[in-house]
Amino acid sequence: MAAIDAMDQTRQAISFAHLEALLEAVFLKAGAAAGVARILAENCAGCERDGALSHGIFRIPGYLGSMKSGWVDPAATPVVEQAGDSFIRVDAANGFAQPAVAAATALVIEKARQNGAAVLAVRNSHHFSALWPDVEPFARQGLLALSMVNSFPCAVAFGAHEPVFGTNPVAFAAPCDGADPIVADLATSAIANGDVQIAAREGKALPPDHGVDRHGQPTTDPKAVLDGGALLTFGGYKGAAISMMIELFCAALTGGKFSFEVDWSAHPGAETPHTGQLIIVIDPDAGRPSSHFAMRARQFVDRLEAAGASRLPGERRYRNRRQSIEKGILIRNTDLRRLQQLAGGAAAAKTRP
Amino acid sequence: MAAIDAMDQTRQAISFAHLEALLEAVFLKAGAAAGVARILAENCAGCERDGALSHGIFRIPGYLGSMKSGWVDPAATPVVEQAGDSFIRVDAANGFAQPAVAAATALVIEKARQNGAAVLAVRNSHHFSALWPDVEPFARQGLLALSMVNSFPCAVAFGAHEPVFGTNPVAFAAPCDGADPIVADLATSAIANGDVQIAAREGKALPPDHGVDRHGQPTTDPKAVLDGGALLTFGGYKGAAISMMIELFCAALTGGKFSFEVDWSAHPGAETPHTGQLIIVIDPDAGRPSSHFAMRARQFVDRLEAAGASRLPGERRYRNRRQSIEKGILIRNTDLRRLQQLAGGAAAAKTRP
Repeated sequence: MAAIDAMDQTRQAISFAHLEALLEAVFLKAGAAAGVARILAENCAGCERDGALSHGIFRIPGYLGSMKSGWVDPAATPVVEQAGDSFIRVDAANGFAQPAVAAATALVIEKARQNGAAVLAVRNSHHFSALWPDVEPFARQGLLALSMVNSFPCAVAFGAHEPVFGTNPVAFAAPCDGADPIVADLATSAIANGDVQIAAREGKALPPDHGVDRHGQPTTDPKAVLDGGALLTFGGYKGAAISMMIELFCAALTGGKFSFEVDWSAHPGAETPHTGQLIIVIDPDAGRPSSHFAMRARQFVDRLEAAGASRLPGERRYRNRRQSIEKGILIRNTDLRRLQQLAGGAAAAKTRP
Repeated sequence: MAAIDAMDQTRQAISFAHLEALLEAVFLKAGAAAGVARILAENCAGCERDGALSHGIFRIPGYLGSMKSGWVDPAATPVVEQAGDSFIRVDAANGFAQPAVAAATALVIEKARQNGAAVLAVRNSHHFSALWPDVEPFARQGLLALSMVNSFPCAVAFGAHEPVFGTNPVAFAAPCDGADPIVADLATSAIANGDVQIAAREGKALPPDHGVDRHGQPTTDPKAVLDGGALLTFGGYKGAAISMMIELFCAALTGGKFSFEVDWSAHPGAETPHTGQLIIVIDPDAGRPSSHFAMRARQFVDRLEAAGASRLPGERRYRNRRQSIEKGILIRNTDLRRLQQLAGGAAAAKTRP
């Protein structure tokens, strides 16, 4: 939605249900299976609602380009395989990651409750959204979740001259007594790829130590990073070590591809990384009084706030979410019109405010 | 061993077995149970051998002070409890963490092999060493391990004025075909507490953005950090989010204490954090051809090296280890004499070179 946005900044507020239905129509029109369209729409509308704009409707052209190019199969049926009583593998069959995760969620929760812990390893999947929407639902069921996903080569390892790591986000979610779950989602690159794209679109400079240009030289120009350059990992060699772990856990463990193995050169328009994802789910109250964990988590958050901590994980998203639910989600008119066009006549009419 | 070191820098090379036996005698003399003394000696000698000096014999006074003060029970018997078929809890009974982990290792490996994944949650434990010695053995058995441990309040959360987090290290280990396991161990504080102590001892300044003084002001003086100041987390709010996860996973999940709950004021000389530890163990080849993971890990390491990556996790330790095995471990004569004194007459004679 990049080119036309700059022209018209007027916005209107629409409901979550409206945006979700509109996006579902867009995905259906582009050839997604009904279940896939529903899951992607809920995910994408949720990101927009929560102010996670780099994973909201900003991503629609990338989704559609990837689908149109034949790079991702939007009608894929994920295959769930129980590799062990606490180890579920899913072959996403070259489809999106979220439907693959959804296909195994009930089983993973059952196994985590039954055995205390379970692991979900997804391969052959395309993950094009934020990671927090994948973990938050587990915490709402009283479980802990730790997830990671690799992507495509865009970040350089400590001291390296060539990108091997993806942005490789890691996310965790934990229940918290009397509050929304604690949910953190962070790229192990110094900045998320979507945020570099937004900076480039808006003509803003990146902070120092976030990227290198195509010659491996440090730069604050987002366009130089996107044009053959690379991101740096956050926190120097420590972030690089975590990013390396994510490659091993999301590719070697799941049976998927390393970021450096992603080759979409035969699919112009493709933008979705075709890799793997790991979700570790733990029942925190296994062998203990129920909701002990949530009570203790609350004590920790209270102590953290008393110590003056700002920007608690997830806080900003929940604030945006509450505001969106109350006042609607603000969407630029140009973006809304474009989405209605993409949804096609009948669907667009159905979902018009 | 701080005070006398500066005087005499002459060293001698001793074998790993010699150092291990000497340390075992030191721990026994200080009141450790036989099994505890053996495990701590192997761990501490291993750190010294691998050049992980901030967790080697440098720690002996801290170990002994903590034991003498009654803060830690060096004769504790850990209690292993199976909370679920993939969830093993251990009450370390106010003893050291390593014997508690050792007491459950065989069961955790059995469960990880049987179910594909298993979780070990240790509480009521004192962890005073590096974390990599806890995870490397799993990778040598072909398994993946991810571990974390919290400590005592010494790091400030993002934007906070008071320390709530510990140094909170996280470590992972993974097998790699034809090579030593890939093992990374990193404090989520910008610097490990032991390294601040070493910098203070050697009169060296810390890098910027590593610590604050007692007034919350940034400082590069290690003594100001140790004297009522605090560490910063690595990588800004991202490191703080990971550190928060570690508190939740090592205290709320295990049933142990948060770092901020550690209160050793009644035990002068106590230095060992009394908290909890989590180890997640995954069988990477569950439902797949054997050693598929190690082969893929090797491909990743090869690619990383081809891209020019330097300082691969664990590389420096393995290099030091090979050299120590070949040429012996270099120990200052003053340190060796002091250890022999601490080991007492008979034991010292037995372990003299």
